[in-house]
Order: sequence, then C-alpha cells, then structure tokens
Amino acid sequence: MNLKDKIADYPNFPKKGILFRDFSPILGDPSALSFMIEEFSKKFHPNDVDVFAGIESRGFIIACALALKYNKGMILVRKAGKLPGKVVKTSYTLEYGKATLEVQKDVIQEGQRVLICDDLLATGGTAKAAAKLIEKINGTIVGFAFIIELLELNGREKIKDYRSESLVEY
Amino acid sequence: MNLKDKIADYPNFPKKGILFRDFSPILGDPSALSFMIEEFSKKFHPNDVDVFAGIESRGFIIACALALKYNKGMILVRKAGKLPGKVVKTSYTLEYGKATLEVQKDVIQEGQRVLICDDLLATGGTAKAAAKLIEKINGTIVGFAFIIELLELNGREKIKDYRSESLVEY
Repeated sequence: MNLKDKIADYPNFPKKGILFRDFSPILGDPSALSFMIEEFSKKFHPNDVDVFAGIESRGFIIACALALKYNKGMILVRKAGKLPGKVVKTSYTLEYGKATLEVQKDVIQEGQRVLICDDLLATGGTAKAAAKLIEKINGTIVGFAFIIELLELNGREKIKDYRSESLVEY
Repeated sequence: MNLKDKIADYPNFPKKGILFRDFSPILGDPSALSFMIEEFSKKFHPNDVDVFAGIESRGFIIACALALKYNKGMILVRKAGKLPGKVVKTSYTLEYGKATLEVQKDVIQEGQRVLICDDLLATGGTAKAAAKLIEKINGTIVGFAFIIELLELNGREKIKDYRSESLVEY
C-alpha cells in the first residue's frame, strides 16, 4: 500500500498559498489505518519506548494507537490552558502564527523514554517545542514519528538533535 | 479495576466553580488504557458499528483505539476552520462558552453506522451538535461512548434520542 495515495491535497487551505495535506482518508480506511500503524512500528522498536506523547490534536491518534499496540502509556502535549494541575509550557512560532504548548509536570517519571507523535512535520516549531517540554519534565526523547513531512520547510533541521521518522514525504 | 481511581480531580479548572475530571492518568497507565478500551467493547457490539467518530480532541483517542481494535474506520469531528474541503458545520453552546463543530461532507457513505466518541458528557451540547453533523452527512448514529459522565449536568437528556454509554459517572 502507498499511503500517499490516501492523502488528499487541498490548495489554499487554511489560507492562500498553503497546500494542505489531509490524512483523513487514511483514518477512514481500516486497512490504511492499520497499515499506517504497522509502518510506524517498523521505524521504532517498542522496547526503546516507555511512553508515546501525542501533540494536540491529531498527534493524539498516533500516540494512542502505538501505546495500545505496545502496551505502553501515552501523554498529552496540549495547547495552552487545557491541562489542569501543575504544567510546564513553552511558546513558539508555527507555520500559521504563534502558539503555546503545555504538558503536565508530573506526567512521566524521570528518565522515561518518550516518542513524540504528530501528524505533520512542517517548519518543526511545534515539534521542537514539544521536545523542550518533554526535556523540562525530565523525559528522554527517543525521537519523533510523523505521518507526513513537508521537506521544503526543512523542519528536520530544527529537530536535528533527535531522530525523526516520517511515513510520507512531499 | 475501577477507572474512577485513575481519574484526578482539579477544583476550579478551567475556571472558578468548575471541578475538572482529568482522565490523563488512565492514558499514562498501560493496563488502565487497555482496560478502558475493553470496557467500551462491552457496551457496543462491533458488528453494529461501521465508523467511529472522534470529537476533537480527546475523543480522537477513543475513536482511534476502537477503530483499530475492530478494524473499522474513524472520522474526525473538529472545531471550526480545521478541516479542508467541503464541510458541514453546526454551532452550539457548551459548558464554558460557544463553539462550532465541523465534519467533512463526504467522509462517510450514506447509511453508515457511526458511534460518536468523546471523553466527557457534560451538558450534552457538544454531543448533540456532533449527532446533528453526522445526520447531516447521512450517517446513522449507533450511539455515544463517553469515558466520564457528569450526571448533575443532565447531558443525557439532551441526547435522549440516542443510546449513550459512559464508563465513569459522577
């Protein structure tokens, strides 16, 4: 199966000049959905990961799927103001503006190995912010797992200190 | 296992007077996470469901987990402006303000049976809006699956035309 065939292109979304790559058709197709998760499994060995971190909101899907498959936990990296209790936060610039990410302070144990999951690697701003958060709470980053990578935006450079795997490149 | 033991309470979040029920500890505990998904499996028979719909953003977690478990598809019910292509939308009042939900117009086939998944049933506004959307795109609603239900807010009344199952009640 070629996952790229299951990704739909929408020019000028969410704004003019942006070509939006939509992976919704993968989710809607049971065999593509399973295939996608299997593909991630080839990139990272489950013995090397303690926790899967999902970046809000589509990253939750990948993190949850992998956590269940390998009988591990998942944690939520969320936008500002959504997580209760003690949180750590970091602000960053993203493709279409500015944002803040947060994670609960005590959500992992020191040294736990975290694989950070998101649907898309664009400029890498969100990914780098997530990495900073995980390190702030004393997690060890195994790497990043993305469905889609937009090569021309060179997000990989921004997270070059970490391993990064993507399933589909444009 | 009692899932309630894994739900953390945060008074006055996100604002004064609100008691936030946080299910993050379930996600972080592999056995609780698997248990939660098994519990949903007891409430709905997979043969009765074609597609699992996740309401942004924590509903994505449940919908994805069930879709993978039963080899079905999942669809995304998202906040306004996030889905590309032709969408249908509906606005509604929720516990802490107002919101709009959207779903892609062609994301399911006519008559497909949809189980709508979210983490929390509070006033039922979000749930009802999601149901309206699924019906607008000609889906048949099997029911709702929630992790947590806040009984005093009586959300169940708002979606009384549908089956609704929750794992933990307060």
